[in-house]
Amino acid sequence: MSTVRLLADDELSPEARVVFDEIRALRRTDVVNNFWRALAHDPALMRRTWESVRDVMAPGALDPLTKELIYAAVSIANNCEYCIRSHTAAARAKGMTEAQYMELVAVVAAASQTNRLATALQVPVDEAFKAVP
Amino acid sequence: MSTVRLLADDELSPEARVVFDEIRALRRTDVVNNFWRALAHDPALMRRTWESVRDVMAPGALDPLTKELIYAAVSIANNCEYCIRSHTAAARAKGMTEAQYMELVAVVAAASQTNRLATALQVPVDEAFKAVP
Amino acid sequence: MSTVRLLADDELSPEARVVFDEIRALRRTDVVNNFWRALAHDPALMRRTWESVRDVMAPGALDPLTKELIYAAVSIANNCEYCIRSHTAAARAKGMTEAQYMELVAVVAAASQTNRLATALQVPVDEAFKAVP
Amino acid sequence: MSTVRLLADDELSPEARVVFDEIRALRRTDVVNNFWRALAHDPALMRRTWESVRDVMAPGALDPLTKELIYAAVSIANNCEYCIRSHTAAARAKGMTEAQYMELVAVVAAASQTNRLATALQVPVDEAFKAVP
Amino acid sequence: MSTVRLLADDELSPEARVVFDEIRALRRTDVVNNFWRALAHDPALMRRTWESVRDVMAPGALDPLTKELIYAAVSIANNCEYCIRSHTAAARAKGMTEAQYMELVAVVAAASQTNRLATALQVPVDEAFKAVP
Amino acid sequence: MSTVRLLADDELSPEARVVFDEIRALRRTDVVNNFWRALAHDPALMRRTWESVRDVMAPGALDPLTKELIYAAVSIANNCEYCIRSHTAAARAKGMTEAQYMELVAVVAAASQTNRLATALQVPVDEAFKAVP
Repeated sequence: MSTVRLLADDELSPEARVVFDEIRALRRTDVVNNFWRALAHDPALMRRTWESVRDVMAPGALDPLTKELIYAAVSIANNCEYCIRSHTAAARAKGMTEAQYMELVAVVAAASQTNRLATALQVPVDEAFKAVP
Repeated sequence: MSTVRLLADDELSPEARVVFDEIRALRRTDVVNNFWRALAHDPALMRRTWESVRDVMAPGALDPLTKELIYAAVSIANNCEYCIRSHTAAARAKGMTEAQYMELVAVVAAASQTNRLATALQVPVDEAFKAVP
Repeated sequence: MSTVRLLADDELSPEARVVFDEIRALRRTDVVNNFWRALAHDPALMRRTWESVRDVMAPGALDPLTKELIYAAVSIANNCEYCIRSHTAAARAKGMTEAQYMELVAVVAAASQTNRLATALQVPVDEAFKAVP
Repeated sequence: MSTVRLLADDELSPEARVVFDEIRALRRTDVVNNFWRALAHDPALMRRTWESVRDVMAPGALDPLTKELIYAAVSIANNCEYCIRSHTAAARAKGMTEAQYMELVAVVAAASQTNRLATALQVPVDEAFKAVP
Repeated sequence: MSTVRLLADDELSPEARVVFDEIRALRRTDVVNNFWRALAHDPALMRRTWESVRDVMAPGALDPLTKELIYAAVSIANNCEYCIRSHTAAARAKGMTEAQYMELVAVVAAASQTNRLATALQVPVDEAFKAVP
Repeated sequence: MSTVRLLADDELSPEARVVFDEIRALRRTDVVNNFWRALAHDPALMRRTWESVRDVMAPGALDPLTKELIYAAVSIANNCEYCIRSHTAAARAKGMTEAQYMELVAVVAAASQTNRLATALQVPVDEAFKAVP
């Protein structure tokens, strides 16, 4: 149960309805996830969030699957169950194989391990790593 | 300054020296980073960490650059300066362009934003996301 | 289910019972939340925690609702479900409107986004921000 | 030193220059902080971020100082030095007194303490906290 | 429900089966926890993780119970429910008393509180703390 | 540089001076760390924090060194540089050997790794771990 009610389609404000329509059109599905049904209480927040995610995840210098893998990895590091599950599902829908998934998980775990080692020992940054293009 | 002294080459135990040799051979450089010079105080920990990172980052179902991007993303989420700088440098060395880098950063930021929204509102996971292959 | 049993009123030690009485008196309700029923296993810890929260949340230079909003925001950032739900409920009880709640959530999300951007890019602190009164 | 160069005014792309102009106009100062000079490498990311922060922090159901306090609190919880310093400075500029600042810090510390207690003991959410308007 | 199916004994690959046998032999129990049944999808990851945990937790300069207390404390700070529950159970199995458990929880809470205070106020490290053996 | 000025002895309020005296008496040293010189701006917060840390860290069911190790481990997980350095120094002062320190660091790293694996895969808690004394 969320901290606000999840809004059904017939409870949406006109501004929220427009965003729902855009989500359905871009994703080519009638399903709108719980995440948007909670955000719909604040149409301005929902619109900002939707446009931001839509633009960031569009194909660019990185392909959509790579972006989805990064999104899932961050969600694991941030410990957000909803996000882990939704972006794992999204990555699978975009073609992530199970072998790729387990490797993603392995990289996240390895990074978490060395991150803590570097932090624990307060290792100073090597000069070579400070070079900026 | 780290919480333990960074060991110079002539201060290494024989076990630590062997790992340094492996790092130099695989990376084809004489430079061994500060991270390993701090870990060298515990050769067993250094060996475990080295083998783990080496195996996880080897080419597999995901290519090395994609893994490096994920590693950098997790390091940002975990807020580890050493790791952010070393893996940003490593990703650039593996061919990451500046446009790809800014997109990586944008995905991490977008994920952090929606992660907090889902957590704040305690959005329940959609049934569709619970399906497991 | 908690990792220790939640204590019922008739299972309390005398020291724990005194704290329960104080909680009931200050909050003007007979209900004592699960949080305190778990802490009651260690009356000294419960007393310290209760006095600390009571004093910190008392009216001062900041009003009680503002403090409650800050408490809820930190609980979201720390990803503590119990704390998110209890302090969201407490803020509503102190007069937080639904519009204020959605704005709170939006600020937390915006901060999480820019926090990660500043961390990712390791932006140096502007000199102007270092001035101290 | 940031992981990308901080751009000077005469290095900006036309799209980035427009955002700089908007920042200067809204904030009524000629100074544009390092944060934006790093983001300027990706004008689309800078524009999205600027519009998002500008709209979220505008007066609404919560007043600007309260929003700034929440922003600072989240930045502390997220451990972002740049963000802690810039939003502490911003809150002072918006009228935060030193007594209010120390109370803010005390609330963040109290929340972090009880957050960990609830998480450690895995306290189940009271039924009363699950009610949703 | 996990994001991958938990593997039953008769679904294990030969490599995974060998690790299961080692876990059973070392722990002197037939039970293999869900954690390993999820990791079994990637036998190399499972083997690396198992060997790492086994070696780190073996008696050394610190005794096994102290290590388990540290493991539980980190799991609380990292907010991992599975880890909190499994390592609290493991610590109890290794002799942790309930009084010790509540003290562990109190130390974690105190540390989280002072950690946030030091971070909020950006307290500079005393020269005396920078000395390294 | 901290976000508030560090107070010198002759700038303390009478209430803050009393706490400084208690710290000096208990620790048998004339040095009072920067942490307390920042907190001294809010004597009530300083007193609460001092009494809490003093009581939590006193000998009890766990010995002082074990508590200090747990404190340091949590500080690493929370990524607080001041806290990592001050509690590493404190643990060394209480007798922690360098071998114990490296093992502490190794346990923190192993826990961070398995914490992320359990979170990534959303492993359900085994029934056996839910038993409560």
